[in-house]
Amino acid sequence: MKILKVKDLISIKRTVDSGTEQQRAAVKEIIRVVREKGDSALLEYTERFDGIRLSSLIVTEEEMEEAFNEISGHMVSIIEDAAENVRAFHERQLRPSWMSTDETGTILGQKITPLDSAGVYVPGGTAAYPSSVLMNVIPAKVAGVKRIVMVSPPDRNGKLPPAVLVAARIAGVKEIYKVGGAQAIAALAYGTETIRPVDKITGPGNIYVALAKREVFGDVDIDMIAGPSEIAVLADDSARAHEIAADLLSQAEHDRRACSILVTTSEKLANDVAFEVEKQLSELPRKEIAAQSIADFGAIYVAENMDEAVETINALAPEHLEIITKNAMELLGKIRHAGAIFIGRFSSEPVGDYFAGPNHVLPTNGTARFSSPLSVEDFQKKSSIIAYSQTALEQNKDKIAVFARLEGLEAHARAVEARFKD
Amino acid sequence: MKILKVKDLISIKRTVDSGTEQQRAAVKEIIRVVREKGDSALLEYTERFDGIRLSSLIVTEEEMEEAFNEISGHMVSIIEDAAENVRAFHERQLRPSWMSTDETGTILGQKITPLDSAGVYVPGGTAAYPSSVLMNVIPAKVAGVKRIVMVSPPDRNGKLPPAVLVAARIAGVKEIYKVGGAQAIAALAYGTETIRPVDKITGPGNIYVALAKREVFGDVDIDMIAGPSEIAVLADDSARAHEIAADLLSQAEHDRRACSILVTTSEKLANDVAFEVEKQLSELPRKEIAAQSIADFGAIYVAENMDEAVETINALAPEHLEIITKNAMELLGKIRHAGAIFIGRFSSEPVGDYFAGPNHVLPTNGTARFSSPLSVEDFQKKSSIIAYSQTALEQNKDKIAVFARLEGLEAHARAVEARFKD
Repeated sequence: MKILKVKDLISIKRTVDSGTEQQRAAVKEIIRVVREKGDSALLEYTERFDGIRLSSLIVTEEEMEEAFNEISGHMVSIIEDAAENVRAFHERQLRPSWMSTDETGTILGQKITPLDSAGVYVPGGTAAYPSSVLMNVIPAKVAGVKRIVMVSPPDRNGKLPPAVLVAARIAGVKEIYKVGGAQAIAALAYGTETIRPVDKITGPGNIYVALAKREVFGDVDIDMIAGPSEIAVLADDSARAHEIAADLLSQAEHDRRACSILVTTSEKLANDVAFEVEKQLSELPRKEIAAQSIADFGAIYVAENMDEAVETINALAPEHLEIITKNAMELLGKIRHAGAIFIGRFSSEPVGDYFAGPNHVLPTNGTARFSSPLSVEDFQKKSSIIAYSQTALEQNKDKIAVFARLEGLEAHARAVEARFKD
Repeated sequence: MKILKVKDLISIKRTVDSGTEQQRAAVKEIIRVVREKGDSALLEYTERFDGIRLSSLIVTEEEMEEAFNEISGHMVSIIEDAAENVRAFHERQLRPSWMSTDETGTILGQKITPLDSAGVYVPGGTAAYPSSVLMNVIPAKVAGVKRIVMVSPPDRNGKLPPAVLVAARIAGVKEIYKVGGAQAIAALAYGTETIRPVDKITGPGNIYVALAKREVFGDVDIDMIAGPSEIAVLADDSARAHEIAADLLSQAEHDRRACSILVTTSEKLANDVAFEVEKQLSELPRKEIAAQSIADFGAIYVAENMDEAVETINALAPEHLEIITKNAMELLGKIRHAGAIFIGRFSSEPVGDYFAGPNHVLPTNGTARFSSPLSVEDFQKKSSIIAYSQTALEQNKDKIAVFARLEGLEAHARAVEARFKD
């Protein structure tokens, strides 16, 4: 693993796949056809891309029962524990509508309302991602969204992974469809005979899913378009090299383009971690992916002092940040940009991926400068409330009219004055 | 004005200008040139588009003093009053970071941090829009954003409107540049010799500004891309026709594509408002714009009863909603989708445009289904905090490892287990 001085850090190499011209055209065409032909287009694309001709898109109660039979009771209870932690954390994000009053009788306020509906995309492929189900569905549920729809591409036998179905049931999803790719996003955005449209679409997916989300954005809301996963570890000489190496590799195994970075004030730790990464790498099942990620996007930076190290972290604005230093809590106030911050050696990043409760949908590619983890608020919206009394309007009508006329909007001034014409 | 039954309402005609192929290409080219040539590109585009060769982009202290000399003391105090109301409302949106603890020593939480910097675009043209300055700058200021930059295109004499400069000073902007159009957005996103880049760009503008914001989105954050302004009035037979007509026209005068709609349970009110709209229209300075807007996008819908009327409003999800009925407050709970809700006859919509305090940057074109008014939170972001104790990790490590392996991520499981290998 490369060891560099912080002053060598000009900009960290990160990539976001924005697709080829061909992929973008394909996605536009799929969306057009789904809007035109509805269910029959979904069934055709599923046959073409997922290799199965379905008779129905709907996941039935029988399939759900089958899923529970295929999963061990122990696994079900682990998913339930994780769901409970996620629910407890997200319930703390709930806020009330509020109003303020004054002596003129004026009421101003902010009303919080859940979205009517949300659609969650769950990727298919070789592995099952029940954690993705929990992290996307539970915030919507806690927010009060009445209709939550899940879509996921079926395997060649026309099935969804049992762990995904079990997680959906535990999270409280009642409407599940076997459809993936851009066609699933089109169905969620514009509706078909079977799938009614939703107001917001969240959840990760491949490049076609990402491009389709970008395409329908505006007609419906979407969550962020995520880049490859990232971790930055901020550590001093109190940290243990084998633990940090293990955490760096846990990001690296996600994706060849994942980004794993250590920033440390200790030259010795830098060398030890570099050694440990090589050693542990060789024993990993996904070692090819992890090795490529470490080679292309991994780096260890040695800082002169902790202030320099902290500023390096802020410049990175990482998705995940671990602080493994003597006074980790004291550094929290200096960290301005990070999606999730893991403090101390017992807060290994995977603790947050599955279990602790905070959301694992986090801003990547430096967008932690201005973006936040997925939260209950992403499934609610606010309306401002303005109730002026007669007294309040009488007191202020001349000011409002003068302001309107300054901006050249005479009808605005007259609307206010009309109240006192009777 | 058209009078229709609610059952005739299939979908309201609204438009969002997404630009021509040529405009999109022009914007891409401007952004490319600004990234390459910096200030000199800004000065050249300003000469080409705004008709003035500037020697400097920076608004000086002398220009600011001049602006205060050109504006009456009365106007300054009105802007100050409006700013104070906007500030007071947005301060109520502030929320603390929070943490939760448990007996294992685990800490979970959510840290709130302001963005480092924000850029506000203020449109130029025939009129000055000091209200736009207040509505975009003050939320950023209240959020704690340290660096707030304002850009606006100069007139042919190289000046910005005095009311805009005065509003900027009152709102607390210290960095103001005379540059507009796509070139200003490029400068805010990527920086030039004079203008350092910002993390988020907000504020309205013409189609080139809107397309440029869409283009730089991802590298920096942006606010919503606003469509034409809209009002829906929900009224029963207690409402006064001339007041409602005046409010509908106050939206219509904004833009030929603005949308003004009355939904009422009273056929008499429908007829009276239609009559009043024609009457008042003829006396407006901007009557051509307003008349076109009313003809193309205006409508009066008569509903069978209040429930049907309310559901019509929810289907519209209007930017502005006025409720002028006998028990207006009681209807609030039934309104699911609206950007700002004005209650009672003394809450004429222009009260909110300039003065009351809630933000006038609101979701248009039905996006109130999932979007919110501009707020303090748009200038802050959250970081999740996870501090697991040794006890907590010991209790849960096996569950976390099982979950990780279910998802096929062995290195995730090993990272957690590494903590107990010493």
